[in-house]
Amino acid sequence: MPEQRSNLLVQDCHVLIVDDEARVQVLANHDIHVEGRHISRVAPHDPQAPASASDALVVEARGMLAMPGLINTHAHAPMVIFRGLAEDVSIERWFNEYMWPLESNLTEEDVYWGMLLALTEMIEGGVTTVADHYFYMDRAAQAVSEAGTRAALGWAVFGDQGYEALSNTAAFVERWQGAADGRITTWMAPHAPYTCDDDFLRAAADHARALGTGIHIHAAEVMSQTEASLAARGKTPIQVLADSGVLEAPTIIAHGCGIVPEDIPLLQQATRVGVAHAPKTYLKLGMGLTPISSLREAGIAVGLATDGAVSNNTLDVLESLRLMAMLQKHEARDPEVMPISEALQIAFRGSAALLGMEQSLGKLAPGFLADIVLLDLSGSHHQPLHSLTASLLYNARASDVHTVIVNGRLLMHEHRLLTLDKARIVSEVRQGMARLAQRVPQKRIQVYNP
Amino acid sequence: MPEQRSNLLVQDCHVLIVDDEARVQVLANHDIHVEGRHISRVAPHDPQAPASASDALVVEARGMLAMPGLINTHAHAPMVIFRGLAEDVSIERWFNEYMWPLESNLTEEDVYWGMLLALTEMIEGGVTTVADHYFYMDRAAQAVSEAGTRAALGWAVFGDQGYEALSNTAAFVERWQGAADGRITTWMAPHAPYTCDDDFLRAAADHARALGTGIHIHAAEVMSQTEASLAARGKTPIQVLADSGVLEAPTIIAHGCGIVPEDIPLLQQATRVGVAHAPKTYLKLGMGLTPISSLREAGIAVGLATDGAVSNNTLDVLESLRLMAMLQKHEARDPEVMPISEALQIAFRGSAALLGMEQSLGKLAPGFLADIVLLDLSGSHHQPLHSLTASLLYNARASDVHTVIVNGRLLMHEHRLLTLDKARIVSEVRQGMARLAQRVPQKRIQVYNP
Repeated sequence: MPEQRSNLLVQDCHVLIVDDEARVQVLANHDIHVEGRHISRVAPHDPQAPASASDALVVEARGMLAMPGLINTHAHAPMVIFRGLAEDVSIERWFNEYMWPLESNLTEEDVYWGMLLALTEMIEGGVTTVADHYFYMDRAAQAVSEAGTRAALGWAVFGDQGYEALSNTAAFVERWQGAADGRITTWMAPHAPYTCDDDFLRAAADHARALGTGIHIHAAEVMSQTEASLAARGKTPIQVLADSGVLEAPTIIAHGCGIVPEDIPLLQQATRVGVAHAPKTYLKLGMGLTPISSLREAGIAVGLATDGAVSNNTLDVLESLRLMAMLQKHEARDPEVMPISEALQIAFRGSAALLGMEQSLGKLAPGFLADIVLLDLSGSHHQPLHSLTASLLYNARASDVHTVIVNGRLLMHEHRLLTLDKARIVSEVRQGMARLAQRVPQKRIQVYNP
Repeated sequence: MPEQRSNLLVQDCHVLIVDDEARVQVLANHDIHVEGRHISRVAPHDPQAPASASDALVVEARGMLAMPGLINTHAHAPMVIFRGLAEDVSIERWFNEYMWPLESNLTEEDVYWGMLLALTEMIEGGVTTVADHYFYMDRAAQAVSEAGTRAALGWAVFGDQGYEALSNTAAFVERWQGAADGRITTWMAPHAPYTCDDDFLRAAADHARALGTGIHIHAAEVMSQTEASLAARGKTPIQVLADSGVLEAPTIIAHGCGIVPEDIPLLQQATRVGVAHAPKTYLKLGMGLTPISSLREAGIAVGLATDGAVSNNTLDVLESLRLMAMLQKHEARDPEVMPISEALQIAFRGSAALLGMEQSLGKLAPGFLADIVLLDLSGSHHQPLHSLTASLLYNARASDVHTVIVNGRLLMHEHRLLTLDKARIVSEVRQGMARLAQRVPQKRIQVYNP
């Protein structure tokens, strides 16, 4: 059932245009016309337009920067309920003593309210789409449906849960594919090569092929996993994905800090693969970095991500964007590496490509879906505004997000949430805090031993 | 002349206490009593207190985190007027083609309005003290005086400006030392060993000794400067500072990414030296990192800084804090490195020590100066708040700063600035934008050729 919406006229903003070749321009003082779910026209501001488009709701945006809604290409959004509970610990302890024991407390209700809290934070930060990988995903889908955002959802599954559990995640894919007025897509989500054996991965790939969907999976998260995989299986994690048929489906690979040069040709031969880059997690957990430049030189898409809030602590894609650009300069000890235009191309075009939506998302142009974020750059930390694009990359904060439109519908206007009751959501999540913080290391949902 | 102020009662907040041994505690639901410029008492919240302290202005702070005002230990604050004008360029081009040609346009009025804009941004971001290093510093001091913040100001001088110019910067030190009700201290500020010869540095040190003040200087900013110094002078930049007598005065060294192991004993033997760490600049300019762990193991203070907004782009010390902690984990590939407590110890105790103010700043305890920041952690990006300290380090944004007190006086309350007219300041700075953005490479104030 289509959702109710008015046509919109976003009036007199500066429109950020980033193309696939990383050419960036800012169209000063333009209007964006939205009809139904799509952008119908982007044109120089016409002071007479409100009268001629009298059926459209006018969104006053004078002086603001309009950009495509940010895309978070890999998260475990409901994990916001655990944030701050696992700090300053090794990756092994992070999984075995914190994360997986904590998740033994998880209920369906936690996922629902956690997802709503995460969507609140993301809408407030201009994130309009999330590729999410977690449990009890019917409840996450329900939350997305209510919030009005866009999501690519996968129900995470470990090999030791067995084939029936895998089938249940495939049933989730069928149940929600294209739901919520097309805002929800669904993916198979086997957890990782180190928690799923080859046969299990092959079965997941079979489901994906049968359902015509893709696979969202963690792989080569860190170099020690690649080394462990070579020792145990004689193959890198990426080779495991290739040999088990996973890469024959569209694939989102989370992290890839352990991708080695031999993996690149396998990724190039894949049907359609991209790597989600979540730099704050990598810094906090000392994981190294995704080899972004090698991937991009080979034509493999890279997108921006936050990962879950137990490692990243927030779901702030603007922060991921800034960290990505700065870390590439740092690692190369070369400030000319990853110029503003390339960083923005990854944020908008790369991330859309990761979801297979580069024809419909990540660009403010006629025919594209109307996922639009207005940034208010009038704050003292942007002034004087010599460069809109430098300010977007290096100065902008989530709190600068002023208005958010998804699928042609206003979700936040003038910092006011229109679809979600934040006070209620925070209150519901807080009620579970004491229970959620309990962790019994012996009671855990999985063991990290790659 | 003492400034007008009421006694304050900051009521029912969570008080962050960080000591010199990096022990961190949060005193839940406490009141902070301020008498005059100082904190007089920190005690469990007493609901009857407002009546008994009827002469005190009550600042309602229920549920907020009270922390010491942030200290920015190295900035060129008025450079906000140029922000966004020098992106994605090498450090040589940054100086020679951008920064120093741009600064040939600089006027006294630019410094005044630029400083006011920078102070606006810093107050809004909870930064109550800045160690600033720039030109036309009488006007910067005037701005600090009006804003109500605290500052350690140095008038930058290059060797080729000559000894009279150096004497003029010493006259500035005398003119403003202890001004603005004690909020302003003044320092000698020779630019750097690569722009000042040994005799000039010695003369600066002589002025500092005669005036009983310290020296704020750039040194060993990047390893290539250390290499160039060894080639030209047969000494590292730190050896140059030691041999020219600079290190006999209290010294703030900016950056130090080129500090080598041989420098450490020289720094240990110095009278009182600390290193200002501005990580965002280092990432953006590919400069490497200050050797923080070596310095701290040797007992040398490290403080947080932003540097100028032409490299950092903002003046956000919360961002510097977060980057510092995350980068130390990243470089060591070890998430147990630089735990939350150590990062906070550097931010509050280390930064105060750099300014020689560890007995009066950087701690919320009786007898300390009342520089207090209230953070509102009710935002969705902090919820549910399992850990106040993790949230401060990894989630807090400048926009969470709710109230700012300096020297016992409210400068911002409930996000509203009380001493500065932001609209006027932004308007004044904007008027000069076109002129400020002009750059003629041949017209520059200095040449970078270390």
